Amino acid sequence: MILVLKPRAPQDGVDGLVKNLENRGFTVHRSDGACHTILGLVGDTSALNEETFRANPLVDTVMRVSSPYKLASRAFHPDKTRVSVGQGKAVFGGGGVTVIAGPCSVESPGQITLIAGEVKRSGARLLRGGAFKPRTSPYAFQGLGPAGLELLSAAKKAVGLPLVSELMNIQQLEHFGDVDVIQIGARNMQNFDLLKELGGIRKPVLLKRGLASTVKELLMSAEYVLAAGNSEVILCERGVRGFDQYTRNILDLSAVPWLQRETHLPVIVDPSHASGASWMVPALAKAALAAGADGLMIEVHNDPEKALCDGEQSMTCGAFDSLMGDLARYAQVEGKTL
Amino acid sequence: MILVLKPRAPQDGVDGLVKNLENRGFTVHRSDGACHTILGLVGDTSALNEETFRANPLVDTVMRVSSPYKLASRAFHPDKTRVSVGQGKAVFGGGGVTVIAGPCSVESPGQITLIAGEVKRSGARLLRGGAFKPRTSPYAFQGLGPAGLELLSAAKKAVGLPLVSELMNIQQLEHFGDVDVIQIGARNMQNFDLLKELGGIRKPVLLKRGLASTVKELLMSAEYVLAAGNSEVILCERGVRGFDQYTRNILDLSAVPWLQRETHLPVIVDPSHASGASWMVPALAKAALAAGADGLMIEVHNDPEKALCDGEQSMTCGAFDSLMGDLARYAQVEGKTL
Amino acid sequence: MILVLKPRAPQDGVDGLVKNLENRGFTVHRSDGACHTILGLVGDTSALNEETFRANPLVDTVMRVSSPYKLASRAFHPDKTRVSVGQGKAVFGGGGVTVIAGPCSVESPGQITLIAGEVKRSGARLLRGGAFKPRTSPYAFQGLGPAGLELLSAAKKAVGLPLVSELMNIQQLEHFGDVDVIQIGARNMQNFDLLKELGGIRKPVLLKRGLASTVKELLMSAEYVLAAGNSEVILCERGVRGFDQYTRNILDLSAVPWLQRETHLPVIVDPSHASGASWMVPALAKAALAAGADGLMIEVHNDPEKALCDGEQSMTCGAFDSLMGDLARYAQVEGKTL
Amino acid sequence: MILVLKPRAPQDGVDGLVKNLENRGFTVHRSDGACHTILGLVGDTSALNEETFRANPLVDTVMRVSSPYKLASRAFHPDKTRVSVGQGKAVFGGGGVTVIAGPCSVESPGQITLIAGEVKRSGARLLRGGAFKPRTSPYAFQGLGPAGLELLSAAKKAVGLPLVSELMNIQQLEHFGDVDVIQIGARNMQNFDLLKELGGIRKPVLLKRGLASTVKELLMSAEYVLAAGNSEVILCERGVRGFDQYTRNILDLSAVPWLQRETHLPVIVDPSHASGASWMVPALAKAALAAGADGLMIEVHNDPEKALCDGEQSMTCGAFDSLMGDLARYAQVEGKTL
Repeated sequence: MILVLKPRAPQDGVDGLVKNLENRGFTVHRSDGACHTILGLVGDTSALNEETFRANPLVDTVMRVSSPYKLASRAFHPDKTRVSVGQGKAVFGGGGVTVIAGPCSVESPGQITLIAGEVKRSGARLLRGGAFKPRTSPYAFQGLGPAGLELLSAAKKAVGLPLVSELMNIQQLEHFGDVDVIQIGARNMQNFDLLKELGGIRKPVLLKRGLASTVKELLMSAEYVLAAGNSEVILCERGVRGFDQYTRNILDLSAVPWLQRETHLPVIVDPSHASGASWMVPALAKAALAAGADGLMIEVHNDPEKALCDGEQSMTCGAFDSLMGDLARYAQVEGKTL
Repeated sequence: MILVLKPRAPQDGVDGLVKNLENRGFTVHRSDGACHTILGLVGDTSALNEETFRANPLVDTVMRVSSPYKLASRAFHPDKTRVSVGQGKAVFGGGGVTVIAGPCSVESPGQITLIAGEVKRSGARLLRGGAFKPRTSPYAFQGLGPAGLELLSAAKKAVGLPLVSELMNIQQLEHFGDVDVIQIGARNMQNFDLLKELGGIRKPVLLKRGLASTVKELLMSAEYVLAAGNSEVILCERGVRGFDQYTRNILDLSAVPWLQRETHLPVIVDPSHASGASWMVPALAKAALAAGADGLMIEVHNDPEKALCDGEQSMTCGAFDSLMGDLARYAQVEGKTL
Repeated sequence: MILVLKPRAPQDGVDGLVKNLENRGFTVHRSDGACHTILGLVGDTSALNEETFRANPLVDTVMRVSSPYKLASRAFHPDKTRVSVGQGKAVFGGGGVTVIAGPCSVESPGQITLIAGEVKRSGARLLRGGAFKPRTSPYAFQGLGPAGLELLSAAKKAVGLPLVSELMNIQQLEHFGDVDVIQIGARNMQNFDLLKELGGIRKPVLLKRGLASTVKELLMSAEYVLAAGNSEVILCERGVRGFDQYTRNILDLSAVPWLQRETHLPVIVDPSHASGASWMVPALAKAALAAGADGLMIEVHNDPEKALCDGEQSMTCGAFDSLMGDLARYAQVEGKTL
Repeated sequence: MILVLKPRAPQDGVDGLVKNLENRGFTVHRSDGACHTILGLVGDTSALNEETFRANPLVDTVMRVSSPYKLASRAFHPDKTRVSVGQGKAVFGGGGVTVIAGPCSVESPGQITLIAGEVKRSGARLLRGGAFKPRTSPYAFQGLGPAGLELLSAAKKAVGLPLVSELMNIQQLEHFGDVDVIQIGARNMQNFDLLKELGGIRKPVLLKRGLASTVKELLMSAEYVLAAGNSEVILCERGVRGFDQYTRNILDLSAVPWLQRETHLPVIVDPSHASGASWMVPALAKAALAAGADGLMIEVHNDPEKALCDGEQSMTCGAFDSLMGDLARYAQVEGKTL
């Protein structure tokens, strides 16, 4: 961490600050310039609070040099993390493009098993489906709850795809026995107590970026899970809030190359929630693949008009099948497989 | 809710849609224009999902007319809600300007009791202090936890101010016996499971607006608490994320008059978290009062430079005292008292 | 345009409003619902101001149904516009992916001719280079001005690529004789007087989206040029302002499919300005192609470290050549050529 | 400017960079830390481009220490600038709160003279009115042009208020003879060629913040005018683009205390354009005064429902008169006068 002191900071104040820092175990490199004195702190600064220094009347600016997410950072773990699901039925971060597909919400036995079969036939490697749904309105459909997870289990047994489903609350975990990947939604990305609990779970966590979260905050949230003991975190870009509301959110595909360079964790993209419009999903899914994503999560519904949730953004099974063909050709250009 | 259908939507499709809506219990007013057919739905549309209609290939645009937050809406409850705390020691929504003050985090017995005495002397009506702290980094100070709440209780007993403290997780509730107002932080504004639990609590809830939440979403989150049975919700504007980062967040003071018109719930402002800089707090606190806020929440610390959290945004006790004098003069202009 | 009136709007007020609208030449379809009266206006509403209606105390909400950009809209011109440049040396909107490349600023005869040769060899169809540069600081390099355009002319003559260069001010036009495509920068997207002047020019206009402009505002700005008589407008997505500043701007690739559906004008993407980092350009360029762009504009410099402007975002000639190989393979998947 | 070099940057590369900087006239302070070498540049860095350094493969981060707006900065000009208009009829920056009022657009002789008389009676010190209007749509009313300025002149003669009107284009200047303050709208804040031209004008410039401009960019745009020779610039906060569209823009009142500290130029606020809703204007106008603004610009119309432009945000003359009474009481609290 580097502290640039205010012009004309009094000598004894600066000496006191340096001593204080040394007492806290840091080596301090001091450089007295014409206008500014600069202090470089060497030591483990990851628990230091930049803002405390900014409150100090001697300090002009504070700059963090080393990344505050040691476990998530690629600088310290150059090898890509490979997350294997369902005895290798699906792998994230192994060089391929792994597609998760399924409805926003589990609605009925017929619906989920039908869709599971269809998306498997088209090449999806995991089935998604929500049983606990975070909804802006308390009056909107909140998901089938435990019964929804039972329907997912049945679909898994029938079709053989590993499951991804969203957990909103650690008390719900008992129902997630058959779920292979625990999804944490955008609204819970900074539910820090929940993140800590996930450290103790022996399942991969799919962590979605919050609507107003920076990519560094996404990595800090992943760091909570990693630091608590679970090293299998999959990151998911799903759009952030912007001023132009012709799409539900603005898909930030630059996050893909940036995260691929900054972290060893797998990075996937959800074009369905980002756009909120199924007709845009093929263009954005192909773009996400081209940008370097390790996987995609796509909403598919057998009858989008009748969907209890997010029908507008769900592709039909037929449209999804056609998209998978396109994606396979794109993957081939990169020497990858779906 | 109003549905504008696509130009040249086929007659039999439209008939089918109308029949479907009538079967679901709505009265449908149909108006066939030169280009567009418009359907007006009458009935309780609060549980309807606009997006499901948007997915319908016959539908061009969807417009919600009645507000989806029936309990929070002033249209249905014209009288302002008055939230009384600590046997009337503090009232929100009673026509005055109620000031909450205290440190970001409880740090030690000496610190919290000292600050409590100081802010009470200056005219604050409630003491704030965090024991469970949501922090971006897992390595940052996370609060003293239950021990922090015990220190708050002691300060309450010693000084006589009601308490406000943040709850991150319903399991923590057992430690909040002496806390008078339960604060829900910006990052938990859409932690819907937590909001539902708060419905069963017999204490006022101070609900902070999320960093990327619209004012309507804030009201929908309040609606979760109200619908679950707790009618005492205080709303708090504390800044939203913007593109210009000279302040930590952008304080959206237009939310004050808008919320005052749209809802009967009390509305307060937190200028400390919004700006992230204590020197800006006086200007923003006065502006919030002038904009019509029912109260303010201000961070005060006896020694901001040594604060374990958010020192940069904490005022000293002396600066707070001086601000309270200014606020009293502003309140007088409006015929209010602090 | 549809007006939803306030609940309990007085009958005579509504009658007066309807009469006023009919006097202005509109046919008014009136639908009296249980709570709301809805007025549907038929006629040419493109000059109507929605906000004037919102100021009317009888009116609750206003919804525009037909698009306010008649000339730019695909609804009225289903065939894609094909913009041909330099006697067909480059075509935008003809089904291929047309790449513009070159330095941010023209710096010297050697520099621009060297880069022109290199990018042509790699497959670029047009040369870009700025002579008049919009810079945030008055003290930063402002471009070579007329001398820069002479160097571009020389490079064009030597290498044979058509030219794209930015015009900031209609007085500069006299120097643009050899420039084939007039670029209007993001900061001038709503310089309406300049847009009107471009209507009289017999050259294609490359119009960049403003930093805080919606896609509809981009189309409205294109409409200024079209309405003033110039039908050759190329739209360019180049990133918008967001809250996360790990990239200079947030590239909004959803704009590509949306614009391709909404307008007949060609749509290109500038990944260099969006990201502000040359190492991200390949991922974003491939993604833009995959999202359906008709072209790309990429900054290339022979010596980025010494560039007078925007070195950080300029690719080297070698990196660009390698990217062009990748893009050709991606184009092939879509049955397109570069 | 401070450059933090990459960990393990090769010694000879660093030596070369230092030599290069010294050759360009800078004194370089070098500090070799455990991981990072830091270079501090002393000299006039205002023309230096941070991004060029970021492109250098040796450089990790770049931090600007001294402000890049030397003329606008309060650090170099501690005394507040006082802009006097109309032989002292109105003063900005003189310790009072100066109110500009009038309609969005000049519409007719009767309208502008009527409003001028009314707002003068209520205490406004300047009359605003647009003759050249920047409109998103080419089909919307574009203002009366030169005829509108003649009507403003007549109103000035009749009523005696100095005039503020918007200039979109330097060619229009010939019509602005009677205009006392030249307004540059938000969409032209970075029309750098126009800003340079304003340097040669002997009239104060009212510069509005762009919709997506940072406060530092606003100061850089003011710096263009100052550097070109005109020292009378009044800054105007008028709202920026945000994600929540219940107001037209989000009024960023933190800009007031920040600008008051950072620059010596007067700072005013336009609550009408920010909110887009006249009923919010009183709350926001009082808040702006409380935040420390040197003035306000408020839209007033004799018949908002029939206004040709922005009726929704215009106050009636009666509402404005009542607001001025409130503002006078607020000003008194601060020991100021309107």
